[in-house]
Amino acid sequence: MVDFNNIIDFFEQSNIPENMLKRGQLVLNNFLKPIKILFEQKNVPKEPWSDDQIEFLLEILSNMDTDKDSQASRVGEREARIASRLHLKMSAGFCHGVGRSGFLTAPQPKAPGGSIMYEITNYLARNFLKNFGLPNINKAIVVPLCTGMSLALSLGALKPDIHSNKTKILVPQIEHRSILKAFDLMGFTQKVVEGKVFGDAVRIPIEDIRASLDSECFSVISLTSFFPPREHDDIKEISKFAKDNNLVHIIINAYGVQSPEWMKLIRSAIDAGRVDVIIQSTDKNFLTPVGGAVIASPDEEVITKISQAYPGRASAAPVVNFLISMLSLGINGYLKLIEQQQKNRNLLEEKLREVASKVNERVLEIFNPVAVAVSLENLKKEKLDALGGALYNLRVTGPRVYHSGESGESVFGTCCKYYPTPYIVMNAAIGAREEDIFSAVERFEKAYKQVAS
Amino acid sequence: MVDFNNIIDFFEQSNIPENMLKRGQLVLNNFLKPIKILFEQKNVPKEPWSDDQIEFLLEILSNMDTDKDSQASRVGEREARIASRLHLKMSAGFCHGVGRSGFLTAPQPKAPGGSIMYEITNYLARNFLKNFGLPNINKAIVVPLCTGMSLALSLGALKPDIHSNKTKILVPQIEHRSILKAFDLMGFTQKVVEGKVFGDAVRIPIEDIRASLDSECFSVISLTSFFPPREHDDIKEISKFAKDNNLVHIIINAYGVQSPEWMKLIRSAIDAGRVDVIIQSTDKNFLTPVGGAVIASPDEEVITKISQAYPGRASAAPVVNFLISMLSLGINGYLKLIEQQQKNRNLLEEKLREVASKVNERVLEIFNPVAVAVSLENLKKEKLDALGGALYNLRVTGPRVYHSGESGESVFGTCCKYYPTPYIVMNAAIGAREEDIFSAVERFEKAYKQVAS
Amino acid sequence: MVDFNNIIDFFEQSNIPENMLKRGQLVLNNFLKPIKILFEQKNVPKEPWSDDQIEFLLEILSNMDTDKDSQASRVGEREARIASRLHLKMSAGFCHGVGRSGFLTAPQPKAPGGSIMYEITNYLARNFLKNFGLPNINKAIVVPLCTGMSLALSLGALKPDIHSNKTKILVPQIEHRSILKAFDLMGFTQKVVEGKVFGDAVRIPIEDIRASLDSECFSVISLTSFFPPREHDDIKEISKFAKDNNLVHIIINAYGVQSPEWMKLIRSAIDAGRVDVIIQSTDKNFLTPVGGAVIASPDEEVITKISQAYPGRASAAPVVNFLISMLSLGINGYLKLIEQQQKNRNLLEEKLREVASKVNERVLEIFNPVAVAVSLENLKKEKLDALGGALYNLRVTGPRVYHSGESGESVFGTCCKYYPTPYIVMNAAIGAREEDIFSAVERFEKAYKQVAS
Amino acid sequence: MVDFNNIIDFFEQSNIPENMLKRGQLVLNNFLKPIKILFEQKNVPKEPWSDDQIEFLLEILSNMDTDKDSQASRVGEREARIASRLHLKMSAGFCHGVGRSGFLTAPQPKAPGGSIMYEITNYLARNFLKNFGLPNINKAIVVPLCTGMSLALSLGALKPDIHSNKTKILVPQIEHRSILKAFDLMGFTQKVVEGKVFGDAVRIPIEDIRASLDSECFSVISLTSFFPPREHDDIKEISKFAKDNNLVHIIINAYGVQSPEWMKLIRSAIDAGRVDVIIQSTDKNFLTPVGGAVIASPDEEVITKISQAYPGRASAAPVVNFLISMLSLGINGYLKLIEQQQKNRNLLEEKLREVASKVNERVLEIFNPVAVAVSLENLKKEKLDALGGALYNLRVTGPRVYHSGESGESVFGTCCKYYPTPYIVMNAAIGAREEDIFSAVERFEKAYKQVAS
Repeated sequence: MVDFNNIIDFFEQSNIPENMLKRGQLVLNNFLKPIKILFEQKNVPKEPWSDDQIEFLLEILSNMDTDKDSQASRVGEREARIASRLHLKMSAGFCHGVGRSGFLTAPQPKAPGGSIMYEITNYLARNFLKNFGLPNINKAIVVPLCTGMSLALSLGALKPDIHSNKTKILVPQIEHRSILKAFDLMGFTQKVVEGKVFGDAVRIPIEDIRASLDSECFSVISLTSFFPPREHDDIKEISKFAKDNNLVHIIINAYGVQSPEWMKLIRSAIDAGRVDVIIQSTDKNFLTPVGGAVIASPDEEVITKISQAYPGRASAAPVVNFLISMLSLGINGYLKLIEQQQKNRNLLEEKLREVASKVNERVLEIFNPVAVAVSLENLKKEKLDALGGALYNLRVTGPRVYHSGESGESVFGTCCKYYPTPYIVMNAAIGAREEDIFSAVERFEKAYKQVAS
Repeated sequence: MVDFNNIIDFFEQSNIPENMLKRGQLVLNNFLKPIKILFEQKNVPKEPWSDDQIEFLLEILSNMDTDKDSQASRVGEREARIASRLHLKMSAGFCHGVGRSGFLTAPQPKAPGGSIMYEITNYLARNFLKNFGLPNINKAIVVPLCTGMSLALSLGALKPDIHSNKTKILVPQIEHRSILKAFDLMGFTQKVVEGKVFGDAVRIPIEDIRASLDSECFSVISLTSFFPPREHDDIKEISKFAKDNNLVHIIINAYGVQSPEWMKLIRSAIDAGRVDVIIQSTDKNFLTPVGGAVIASPDEEVITKISQAYPGRASAAPVVNFLISMLSLGINGYLKLIEQQQKNRNLLEEKLREVASKVNERVLEIFNPVAVAVSLENLKKEKLDALGGALYNLRVTGPRVYHSGESGESVFGTCCKYYPTPYIVMNAAIGAREEDIFSAVERFEKAYKQVAS
Repeated sequence: MVDFNNIIDFFEQSNIPENMLKRGQLVLNNFLKPIKILFEQKNVPKEPWSDDQIEFLLEILSNMDTDKDSQASRVGEREARIASRLHLKMSAGFCHGVGRSGFLTAPQPKAPGGSIMYEITNYLARNFLKNFGLPNINKAIVVPLCTGMSLALSLGALKPDIHSNKTKILVPQIEHRSILKAFDLMGFTQKVVEGKVFGDAVRIPIEDIRASLDSECFSVISLTSFFPPREHDDIKEISKFAKDNNLVHIIINAYGVQSPEWMKLIRSAIDAGRVDVIIQSTDKNFLTPVGGAVIASPDEEVITKISQAYPGRASAAPVVNFLISMLSLGINGYLKLIEQQQKNRNLLEEKLREVASKVNERVLEIFNPVAVAVSLENLKKEKLDALGGALYNLRVTGPRVYHSGESGESVFGTCCKYYPTPYIVMNAAIGAREEDIFSAVERFEKAYKQVAS
Repeated sequence: MVDFNNIIDFFEQSNIPENMLKRGQLVLNNFLKPIKILFEQKNVPKEPWSDDQIEFLLEILSNMDTDKDSQASRVGEREARIASRLHLKMSAGFCHGVGRSGFLTAPQPKAPGGSIMYEITNYLARNFLKNFGLPNINKAIVVPLCTGMSLALSLGALKPDIHSNKTKILVPQIEHRSILKAFDLMGFTQKVVEGKVFGDAVRIPIEDIRASLDSECFSVISLTSFFPPREHDDIKEISKFAKDNNLVHIIINAYGVQSPEWMKLIRSAIDAGRVDVIIQSTDKNFLTPVGGAVIASPDEEVITKISQAYPGRASAAPVVNFLISMLSLGINGYLKLIEQQQKNRNLLEEKLREVASKVNERVLEIFNPVAVAVSLENLKKEKLDALGGALYNLRVTGPRVYHSGESGESVFGTCCKYYPTPYIVMNAAIGAREEDIFSAVERFEKAYKQVAS
């Protein structure tokens, strides 16, 4: 076959001078070099790749799959036949998807290129997490499922024997519908440990968790990234508790990779006790389209179980999307994003403080490296509703306005029985631009004044 | 905004003559017309669209999503931010995925275009199935999950109350790992009704199914498309049986849409008794990349339940892939594919009969509109293994070689305790080319003679 | 650098079995092999390449150009900087264009990849023409100029010394505006030898050409492909005449490559006398977008002169387009196109004969391997105009309706003083589909009857 | 046809809430709005368009061309048939090219969309030049030819009657091969007015030009952008001179658009005397791939003549490239580029001064808004050669090293008989990055010291 490292050999007899040919080879080598390093080291590159380099890699790998073999006779019922070339675009050529007969990471005989692609991607997932706060994990896989479904899959894989009576999961109060639904889907009961208000923050004391344990529980859940007023869980203590009580411990780290502080919590938890699974969203952490998650574990065996629990093949798209993000960001690109996120988070707080002081509100005292909450005590209930609408019309996407329930009833979203202060939450999440922060706060002030008047 | 139906108005003062401008508008209208018809009728087009027309539609819709809004301030934790433009390509611009808070078909406020896209796609799924054999379904959705996972999701959504003791599923013997794993994942026990040999065919008599029912069963599974020697189930009778006994009846129609005969079985079953869910693979039936399934039901409520059971959002890619297939094939394109499939199936049988008669083997008598099985009685066990290897080396993908277990033990893949005849199966599935059939049989003959000698 | 022939070496330690990796490498090799053959042989491939293979080659080569060098410091005034990535698409990455300081085929130090691309393309142009009728040419180049401008360039390069008084070109009557303008642009006078009617055909007798020669003529033009009633020139005799009289002989072979008969005329002409230049359109012969021509010569020196006469660099796009056509067609693809063209040409004549006999017209007896002319004697002048309009409205593109001038004046397009029969011309050119022929003739009949009634 | 301004009307019955649909329409309108403004105003947009918006426009327009008409019967010899879909990519779908029968700007009946595209592009060319220094031009066209060939075309179109004896062009000494070749190609003689050294600069005094005029001259050329030591011409005086003597005056403004100072020279020249044609490169000024030029004139009639002199059709690619640059830059984008260029130019001088002072050389005193020249008096001739090679190896592209001829002979590139000082020239041209300047000067210092030692 042609050796692209020696293209110029073919043109020795041409009228193109040798030094010019050598320069051409040099520039080409520059282009191809990162691929070699990736193949050798199977690590996230230090510097970002160009889109052309990424597409080149995907082109090479997808052309190893047998659906590209012009010499093949295809008499299977599934041969990655496609109706349109647009399908190639949308799957980066990996039409066979990932997984084989209900084993996600098993190599596919019809898709050697796709299998290599998936294997590399999983190496990068592990390498990335090791680089950004979790040196103590041993294995990670990218699954074409969101956080909630990844939780369901993990629970399904790690659930006790079918004849056991253990069907309960201990859950420090959370109110994300997707997570709650994961329990329902799998037929497990959640045993909720209620949140309590400490100053402005809502937390779930470890003693309350301990006290809630009963013999039907086989698992405990904990969370890092959260919306105020709920703070992250006391993950380290939960980890010890899980170890002591032989519970499957799953950490929902939905968008926590962006925060070294949240990642540190997980790291300590792994060291201190028992952590089975850590689940993170690919879109919220790694800037991919919605549809994937990274499931990691200190225990390789756990990942194998999860991978083997998946009933069938799956779309390669979320996997390729994760790979694209890894290569197009690189370690240094992600470091820059984190730095920018931290600046934006500080800016958001500072700007919100300014507005709050003008309108006699205050920034709530809640630990959160991404979000900031501001009280809305001077707006009545109907004004609070109007505030949400006004922000929508001003094209502010993503803020959430909560009002405490009247006469003390529980309000969905606060993770506690009664939260006294109405508030608004805004995020300075990874990938946001400084302009987002400036304009969002400005528009918030405008909307506030508008509805208040 | 600019009205593309009257582009030429802007050029009245130009030096381009009016009749030329009108011709241009006429040609453009021709290009855009199918989009209007689609929006109005929400049906699968009669004639195929060009790739350019499909991309144009996707471009329009994806540019309605708020991540494209240059005027927005984004302060959510999830805003469909992406690391690379390649992500747009792979998601056709639908970076928000589909679903909202664990309700797959719920419209997404941040993704109006994506929501329209998903809604249209689901209409097309229903319309397609109604056109191709199932006029008696009422609702269908495209899920970004394969057949096995779709089964798991359906079972999870339709399972009895958590406090019920019903955890068993009645299963006429099947041996697809993905389906078996779906039961395991969800924590259900399968109660298998064994296959029996009738002539060459393996079937599961309805009486045996009836006899296996016990009070812990809440569901029964049936299948259309199958590998010989197992034939499709007696779906109509199972449907009546499900109705009589109040069982959730799920039909796995993995690649059955291509066959009017298999589809007719389902149609009668719906009319005759109880069918809750019919699951079909998007890649095997509709020539998309691996990763999606169409879940259909005569009962809209059932689909709503399934849609609401999904814990979270999901990748839009498998949905868009299905949409692409619908538009690029059209009703007439699929009719042609079916016609070609039937020709190929006949050709496969004819050609295999020729070879079989030469080598003193025979085509097995098993009803199957896609696959054909040939006996391998004159090859000893080690030759059978060699045959598989030889075919692999000759680049025949998809054939399966089985040998009966020695001394009567059960052999995985035959769906019965003991199947006496070793055999090879080949498929003439939808999308295969005539050349595939010719060359596969030719290579089979070559391989057979090679190992036999 | 990474050696794509041994990708699998990098994955020996992976969990992908070796035989699977080998299969992947095999499929990839299949994909890459044509590139190697192209580099080694520099000939038009026998079989068509896929679009993916073509794009892969262009990607490799364009990544050898220095504008892709991430390590370069650029301090020239022209460095192939671009405003948008769309420019890369439109130039296939060859942003430096072709040519250097007024020497089209000179290698460009900043564009080693582009230089290789252009050199290969020119080899293919020569190889293609040698394969399809002109084994006796020695050199060909693809220029980013149409036929007329290529003629101007050739005349400019081959014109006599500036102090000579030779400024005339002998031209057997032609009426293509682009060609006539080429003479004007370059400041040459054409000495037209008038066409004469022989039966239905218009020809220019060689004796008349001979008789027209005067001492100020330095060149003679001849043509192959033509619109009826004008037939091709007597190129062989003109070639002898050119040799005898020391005239630069340029053959306009605008869309003649598709016809083995027209090509044979040129071949004989080269052997028999003097042919300096043969010019063929890339779009009309090779199915590229408009914008290029292939200039060929039996004499390498002539091509060098033309190449050196070009004042500056030029767009690479028409060159790349030609390359794309060569690779996507291959020798066998073009053979099939020729075969289809010949069938279509016969069909066109047959169908037109049928219509003609119905309406009492006749097919004119004129040699032309592409076009057919039918008399329109029963339509009066205003009806003839109406016929053109009617065909336009019926979306027949490309037919030409001519009417003889009243009272004997010359009519532009007939290449003679007075052509008695009004007529319509239709082409069955290379790349047309059978449906074009059927529907065009059908619509012609409809239009004829419409205007006649 | 579907009205994209009211997409949401089609979904009123859907389960997507109205306010969500309205938001979708709002975001889409945002995307489409610039197209409407372009169609209405036919001016360069103020703000840059996204690549998606540009592609959308091109898609709409190219789908007005008749080669996209699925209802057409095509019986012309040229119907924009293509061998591969890659051709669509490379031509943005404008397969018919531009021009008709030797009239570049004439609308093409088969290409209404392409004709609109070309007309808009030419409007933008004029509008752009009017915005950036030349309010007094009346017409501009984008030609798919480089500067040299554009000069040839202009000369061919504006040359005197064929029987006139005027065949000379007065040329203040220039040494760009492409320009010199343009004269040769067209058969004109250049009458060179020699450059003279004034301090460091080389200039051509207007008196010398006046003195060189003879009765055979019909044209005079002048230049703006130049390489040191040659400075721009005294264009205003040449313009007066041209008017007084009835000479065709063509200004080569090769890469002068980037400099308000050079543009001002042209503006004054137009006002003061006679300017027929101003030619500017599209790649050097507007960051397109190589292959186009903008030809402008204060006199619309002149442009019409040039447009009509072009013998045939031409590639649309260079035209589309110019359009892409206009839309992707916008007025504000270009203003930013100019600002950056000016900063870079100052930086280049400053950094070179620092190096020069270290090695006892000096920055030459020559007016040039793009380039800077530094003396190389302390390097002997062979060292000068070595310097060029060293810079090449250090990947500095574009610098030019000149040495004065020995014993006073003329040296090509200096535009004068004898230039005493050896020197190197570097450019801070539009589109260069600050890093280019920093690294180029740094590498120059390194190379200088290397060869000097």
